[in-house]
Amino acid sequence: MSPAAHEVVIGARRLAIVGVGLMGGSLAAALRGARFVDRIVGVDEDPRSLGTAHAHGLIDDMQDLEAAVAEADLVVLATPLGALPGLLARLSRCLPARAVVTDMGSAKQPVAEVARALGLTRFVPGHPMAGGECSGPAAARADLFAGRSVILTPTETTDDEAVRAVQTMWTAAGARVVMADAATHDRLVAYTSHLPHLLAFACAELLAEYAPAEALAPFTGAGLKDFLRIAGSDPVMWRDICAANAASLAPALAAYAERLAGYSERVACGDFEGLLGHFAKARAFRADLMRRSTHGEH
Amino acid sequence: MSPAAHEVVIGARRLAIVGVGLMGGSLAAALRGARFVDRIVGVDEDPRSLGTAHAHGLIDDMQDLEAAVAEADLVVLATPLGALPGLLARLSRCLPARAVVTDMGSAKQPVAEVARALGLTRFVPGHPMAGGECSGPAAARADLFAGRSVILTPTETTDDEAVRAVQTMWTAAGARVVMADAATHDRLVAYTSHLPHLLAFACAELLAEYAPAEALAPFTGAGLKDFLRIAGSDPVMWRDICAANAASLAPALAAYAERLAGYSERVACGDFEGLLGHFAKARAFRADLMRRSTHGEH
Repeated sequence: MSPAAHEVVIGARRLAIVGVGLMGGSLAAALRGARFVDRIVGVDEDPRSLGTAHAHGLIDDMQDLEAAVAEADLVVLATPLGALPGLLARLSRCLPARAVVTDMGSAKQPVAEVARALGLTRFVPGHPMAGGECSGPAAARADLFAGRSVILTPTETTDDEAVRAVQTMWTAAGARVVMADAATHDRLVAYTSHLPHLLAFACAELLAEYAPAEALAPFTGAGLKDFLRIAGSDPVMWRDICAANAASLAPALAAYAERLAGYSERVACGDFEGLLGHFAKARAFRADLMRRSTHGEH
Repeated sequence: MSPAAHEVVIGARRLAIVGVGLMGGSLAAALRGARFVDRIVGVDEDPRSLGTAHAHGLIDDMQDLEAAVAEADLVVLATPLGALPGLLARLSRCLPARAVVTDMGSAKQPVAEVARALGLTRFVPGHPMAGGECSGPAAARADLFAGRSVILTPTETTDDEAVRAVQTMWTAAGARVVMADAATHDRLVAYTSHLPHLLAFACAELLAEYAPAEALAPFTGAGLKDFLRIAGSDPVMWRDICAANAASLAPALAAYAERLAGYSERVACGDFEGLLGHFAKARAFRADLMRRSTHGEH
């Protein structure tokens, strides 16, 4: 019998984190708190982020990518999605044979394909279902991933030992690891994450066109605030996610538009009992989903 | 010079609250805390709500509508929208001449029209922009309305003294009173509240049709949780709101569908820079709106 995931000894005690923002910084804090790592090296284009991460004790040292990777057992790419293809190309030229690499990108098929094309068999595509409104290493929290799911999407060419190493790392950070194939991941997050972001952006933009903020403000309640929270997300990051997952996002948008047209039709023809049926079904499913998810009601 | 609103002596010390749920109970708690009332009588079809409200010290006594109103200076209708026409009709037959009436309904034109048709000139249509996920008098909080806006939509036939009395009451409860005409109110809340609720219900229903909750749960993050929170609202209440404000909701839905079709078009043709422009505009407006609203970021 193989040992349980958390018992696998991987010797991955030297960690390189590329992108020391909220996500990378929080992973550093969690792994340090769990005594999973001996040494963490930070890599970031922004020297201020590196300085903050170092001042907060998240990283021991800062180096450029090539130097950081040369000494690392485990490399975590915690950058925005758009930076991943370039980073993977650089890693394919400098990664030591022993090192394992994973990422945190919100769409998995394009990243997995780039890694496969580059022959990076020890790259394990990953996506933690966690985040926050704030960004930057000063917002990092050791419990950001506690109880949250992390999706790993290895391909048939991904090294099994590498998968176990990444699984062990996330378990040490307190996350629940879920395995999926990249296509399934991308289809499901198109519905659970990418579509809702577009819906929130579209609603905020519609409000912008409809009336000035000072006119709408007195008519704004806590419900709208929560609904629009994700429209506060970084536009560049979401441009890149939409580009990376357009193939799954397009049918999700079409299905939503059809559903909404059904609601409009019922409003237009005064079929409010029909609307009630939709609302009741929606509410029941939401309650069930929240009960089952790690971000439940309580 | 007329005295400031909060200085107006209205002699409204005997309050009847019809519907002692979260909203009515919270108003009772706030007004009692502010020593605005001497005596609060609760009216509710549900004897358990009355019992809980009494046990929590929110109401001094419980009576039927006619008895409660006979002794009241101020009557607050804190029931769902659907119950208001029937209650107003009953009030038109039993309301003492001195008593002032207001409501908390989410759509104002239909209620205002019913009151005008009944000759209830001392009825002041109102809508507090506050609420909560929980319902019932046990969830009542004295600060539910603190800093929140309350929209009042008197018509040309509404008695001025009645308007001042309701204004004074809400100010005592800690709310910020905003005057608007009913048509403007209904158009604006169609965009800021009713449309977002329908969008969230439609998203939750789409998820229900797409995959089982157990399959989606690992792919569910905090963003979706916030986005779907309002899809946890009471379906019957929202059926009634849609019915009451269909005239304003229909064009808001149409405008949203058009906006979303623009997003879909950009996704389909790969115009991600165009999407970025939409997202940036949406994000900036959201930040401005939240800064100006009483439910701001901080």
